[in-house]
Amino acid sequence: MVRVGIVGVTGYTGGEILRILHGHDGVELTYVTAHTMAGRMLTEVYPHYQGIMEATCHAFSVEEAAQKTDLVFSALPHGESMDVVPQLCEARLKVIDLSADFRLKEAQLYSSWYRKEHRAPAYLGRSVYGLADIYAGDIKEADLVANPGCYPTSVLLALAPVAGEDLLNWNSLVVDSKSGTSGAGRVPSPVLHFPECSENFRAYRVAEHQHTPEMEQELGRLAGRKVTFTFVPHLVPMVRGILSTIYVQLTKKMEEEEIRNIYSNYYSECKFVRLLPPSLVPETRHVYGSNYCDISLKYDRRTDRLIIISVIDNLVKGAAGQAVQNMNLVLGFEEGRGLDIVPIRP
Amino acid sequence: MVRVGIVGVTGYTGGEILRILHGHDGVELTYVTAHTMAGRMLTEVYPHYQGIMEATCHAFSVEEAAQKTDLVFSALPHGESMDVVPQLCEARLKVIDLSADFRLKEAQLYSSWYRKEHRAPAYLGRSVYGLADIYAGDIKEADLVANPGCYPTSVLLALAPVAGEDLLNWNSLVVDSKSGTSGAGRVPSPVLHFPECSENFRAYRVAEHQHTPEMEQELGRLAGRKVTFTFVPHLVPMVRGILSTIYVQLTKKMEEEEIRNIYSNYYSECKFVRLLPPSLVPETRHVYGSNYCDISLKYDRRTDRLIIISVIDNLVKGAAGQAVQNMNLVLGFEEGRGLDIVPIRP
Amino acid sequence: MVRVGIVGVTGYTGGEILRILHGHDGVELTYVTAHTMAGRMLTEVYPHYQGIMEATCHAFSVEEAAQKTDLVFSALPHGESMDVVPQLCEARLKVIDLSADFRLKEAQLYSSWYRKEHRAPAYLGRSVYGLADIYAGDIKEADLVANPGCYPTSVLLALAPVAGEDLLNWNSLVVDSKSGTSGAGRVPSPVLHFPECSENFRAYRVAEHQHTPEMEQELGRLAGRKVTFTFVPHLVPMVRGILSTIYVQLTKKMEEEEIRNIYSNYYSECKFVRLLPPSLVPETRHVYGSNYCDISLKYDRRTDRLIIISVIDNLVKGAAGQAVQNMNLVLGFEEGRGLDIVPIRP
Amino acid sequence: MVRVGIVGVTGYTGGEILRILHGHDGVELTYVTAHTMAGRMLTEVYPHYQGIMEATCHAFSVEEAAQKTDLVFSALPHGESMDVVPQLCEARLKVIDLSADFRLKEAQLYSSWYRKEHRAPAYLGRSVYGLADIYAGDIKEADLVANPGCYPTSVLLALAPVAGEDLLNWNSLVVDSKSGTSGAGRVPSPVLHFPECSENFRAYRVAEHQHTPEMEQELGRLAGRKVTFTFVPHLVPMVRGILSTIYVQLTKKMEEEEIRNIYSNYYSECKFVRLLPPSLVPETRHVYGSNYCDISLKYDRRTDRLIIISVIDNLVKGAAGQAVQNMNLVLGFEEGRGLDIVPIRP
Repeated sequence: MVRVGIVGVTGYTGGEILRILHGHDGVELTYVTAHTMAGRMLTEVYPHYQGIMEATCHAFSVEEAAQKTDLVFSALPHGESMDVVPQLCEARLKVIDLSADFRLKEAQLYSSWYRKEHRAPAYLGRSVYGLADIYAGDIKEADLVANPGCYPTSVLLALAPVAGEDLLNWNSLVVDSKSGTSGAGRVPSPVLHFPECSENFRAYRVAEHQHTPEMEQELGRLAGRKVTFTFVPHLVPMVRGILSTIYVQLTKKMEEEEIRNIYSNYYSECKFVRLLPPSLVPETRHVYGSNYCDISLKYDRRTDRLIIISVIDNLVKGAAGQAVQNMNLVLGFEEGRGLDIVPIRP
Repeated sequence: MVRVGIVGVTGYTGGEILRILHGHDGVELTYVTAHTMAGRMLTEVYPHYQGIMEATCHAFSVEEAAQKTDLVFSALPHGESMDVVPQLCEARLKVIDLSADFRLKEAQLYSSWYRKEHRAPAYLGRSVYGLADIYAGDIKEADLVANPGCYPTSVLLALAPVAGEDLLNWNSLVVDSKSGTSGAGRVPSPVLHFPECSENFRAYRVAEHQHTPEMEQELGRLAGRKVTFTFVPHLVPMVRGILSTIYVQLTKKMEEEEIRNIYSNYYSECKFVRLLPPSLVPETRHVYGSNYCDISLKYDRRTDRLIIISVIDNLVKGAAGQAVQNMNLVLGFEEGRGLDIVPIRP
Repeated sequence: MVRVGIVGVTGYTGGEILRILHGHDGVELTYVTAHTMAGRMLTEVYPHYQGIMEATCHAFSVEEAAQKTDLVFSALPHGESMDVVPQLCEARLKVIDLSADFRLKEAQLYSSWYRKEHRAPAYLGRSVYGLADIYAGDIKEADLVANPGCYPTSVLLALAPVAGEDLLNWNSLVVDSKSGTSGAGRVPSPVLHFPECSENFRAYRVAEHQHTPEMEQELGRLAGRKVTFTFVPHLVPMVRGILSTIYVQLTKKMEEEEIRNIYSNYYSECKFVRLLPPSLVPETRHVYGSNYCDISLKYDRRTDRLIIISVIDNLVKGAAGQAVQNMNLVLGFEEGRGLDIVPIRP
Repeated sequence: MVRVGIVGVTGYTGGEILRILHGHDGVELTYVTAHTMAGRMLTEVYPHYQGIMEATCHAFSVEEAAQKTDLVFSALPHGESMDVVPQLCEARLKVIDLSADFRLKEAQLYSSWYRKEHRAPAYLGRSVYGLADIYAGDIKEADLVANPGCYPTSVLLALAPVAGEDLLNWNSLVVDSKSGTSGAGRVPSPVLHFPECSENFRAYRVAEHQHTPEMEQELGRLAGRKVTFTFVPHLVPMVRGILSTIYVQLTKKMEEEEIRNIYSNYYSECKFVRLLPPSLVPETRHVYGSNYCDISLKYDRRTDRLIIISVIDNLVKGAAGQAVQNMNLVLGFEEGRGLDIVPIRP
């Protein structure tokens, strides 16, 4: 049994790692931290774990982490993770970091989009971007995995098969994403106050969302060229799920069937990416609670535009599930271990 | 007092006309029809009207309509309205038709998108498209007003100020709309079954929605050229509201402020269209139950793309509210009479 | 035109008074206060009022209130109102107080249930309990009206017709209430955080809710004896609405029809209380946004128990609507003026 | 591996059994029937199973069931199950029946509450009532298990510890239950149409719900006397979850702590029933997707009334989960096998 820890267990992504690891038979949870709840039982943070899991929350200590664990999930907010992760790496622990702190390769991009200086820029070159279904090879060799953001996961998986093929008119790319509210985290705020948020729909950070450079960086890498595009996220009055609607013109005429074949070949070995048959459109409910990413394709012949729609559970494939998939890769386990979770529906 | 009737009062748009007319002091509701509920009290259809309104539902009869009313709202489903409206017109009644049957000017377009033959094509040339805030002049002269669709209202009001200005690269236009569930009507279906629809988000009729030709026709008219674009609607787990996110590239470099001025000039006399200040994004809650259309502008300098976001209440501005506004125009009333409804929030 | 003010306009009840008064033609809103937003435009607090209402928020000053208004709604939280209301009364303004501060007649009850000392106990004897449909006579003479709580309104209207009739076995009384989330106010909290509250149902303050003594006081007054009962409130994942299910055994055998007659006689003159026919059960949607209280009766012959179910919109009949009804009574207006609001459905 | 089948897989309970069995390593799913979908792939019924489960739906045939399975879950609607279950029993298959058809011991009670004749009354005496945490001993010996209703599960588990103790004044018992919408099944209807059901709360079948005699029968058995009580169910705008609030007076003065001890002793060996500490109230989210029943106790000293609140996931503990627990008992497996599911939250 590999010993693993979770730093920052009180947030939604930390809690979701807990849930998934409970069904994983290759690892043992030996250390959880929660600085506001240090010394208290995990069931005080998560009453629904009564009778399921006994553990005490600790204040973070790198010595304790090093002593008790082999691998650590850092589920701290961005800005906090960059102080803790280098310590864990120095202690020769494997780290899966769920924050945004080690995803961008350029510290300057980080500071301009996240509005704070990066305090551990030396680690930006050492981290491997953990888009597990695409970069499994690199991840297997990694000590520090930067787990992708939720929006980027939904967008990159949707575009990866065609990104490197000179098929896309990149200047035409528009991504319109819609997310459930759990993506905004556990801290109460006016926007997520039930009476304000229920029966309401809105956009936010229009063309200014901080996941934009992460997507542009990775699309650029897949495309082999600089990519700039328009991204607008929206808030859906539901708890879990992201649906991204992606619009892009092609560089040449194609049949929808040809494009479909590119996708099905590209993902033929990826159990967590499901290309839907033409008769179906993705629904966030179809992946609820699971690690799947469902993708549909539609070629709009009237406008020569490809419309790709993808859905994920933002807390699973968009965070904790992909993190466990990355852990499996890092530890040499089968990549889907512990992740054979059927979507809950209804 | 002008005598008005509602044909097809049991649907959501019919019911919403009822609600609005109850607060209108210039008209008297003298005739309502509901073929499945003929002979029964309105309060059997709408128990929440107990103590508010006494009326009996009739089976439709053009003679009765002609005798009892001066103006009729037809709130029948598309495909049914085209059989009833010509009779009303022949009887020299003013008609506001809320169906899609008299919006398209070409019968062939109707049959290809709605998948049924048009049985009253002669009336297509006689109807006036009732986009009230734009075409008030024409509507005042009309006998038959084709009330716009909900999606088209949200999209056309958002694009009208710039459509005729040679500012838009029309080939780049993408419209991503999100609607509450009441737009799909009152008939139960699996997609709108609460356990399937709640906590779920999906697209539907991707690039195939029947409101597309209506928008293309009217944008073409505003632009003075043929317009073809990509439209994808989505279903939001809420009851009321449409938000449309519109992406379009400009033909030249502009400042956001310049564009904003075009909009504020264009709508300076329109009380129901509200241009939001730069600090705000539209929320469907901000127009809930009211006849407003709120619009925000964002110029994405990184990609030279204009992002226009609009919200309406699909049952009010997108249906019954605009229908009453059209009625006011047709009858020579002040256009906002009976429509001074404050949005309900929260 | 009577000049009215709202003290504490930023909360949900304050905002709802705004909405209702906008449709009232007998009063003019001349003064609004909001201590956190003093000096700023009302549209900064309520963007949905853009184009509808221009007003500036003030810091509270009794001199200004006295100079600018004839009647004031105090929509401050309980504990704050008791400092402000006496000043307004001293300035000879009429006051409708929406807080709990002047509802209980005994200061000691207040301090034990609200856990703070009452700082204006002298006013407890001067206030009139504003259950408008029951105590209209007293209210017309009042200078200070204590507007009832939302739960008490739903419960007292449901029990009033039979309370004084020696029909009820008071020891058997159980009230199980369910409320939408807007009743908890506008301040974000973990319980009302969308991801925690959506798709969740819970009880709270089981048999310990602070509205209990208010109900017991008023039921005791109606019954002419001391009343003690069990009250459990629950939180429903919706925004507006309260439904109370009330269980009580009768002191003698009766026919449901007899009981129904007592109710319809009792409320024959009350336009805002609607007794439903036996075929219908109340739904919160049936009163959404309106000042109605709907009531159903069911006599469970198997257990000799009467089940009364009532629904209100907690922000209207349970707060702002009843407050305006009280204002109408105090000012000598027709009691329903400005309150002819059709419930919004769907 | 034991071979199991599901008859009626297209309903919500059938689908939920599928989900749970997928995580059960002691059985193999060898036969599923769905009469409206016979011959089609399971993924056509449940697109979210793409890549997870391959199976073809069959029309029901008892010969095929007998040949392919050792145990069958009947997830047919009540009224249909009573035609199929006897055939399965005759074929010497073990049967877990999720309908109401074999729960009541008296055919006459069935016909009066379900409004249809019972066509297999001989089996009423042979079935064992499958309240797994209470009757495990009997269930282990059973060939035909009548899986309890969702409401009865929540109520019986809440009352069982004190039912046989002469502690309760049974005449005072009132049960007020609130259920999510999935309990009403998968067939669309006006009541469950999203625009009608969302942001709405209502009671239904007030004191007339068909689960009443099932609860009275089983409470009577636990109490050793005839029990009659008032039961009112309500519909909550959410998908999953039942919360029952139970009010009952005691026959003598007790301390809450004493009562708490009775419960914790009674359930000391039951892993799926969790007695909450006094500081917590049950929330349906705390058991979402899991087989737990959470229970809280509150003794209202002011009224000498015990208030017991219980929550379950109606589709799991209230249906499919308890059915699998019963299967485990019948097959001699550990009772929790395959049911170690962490509640999903948020």
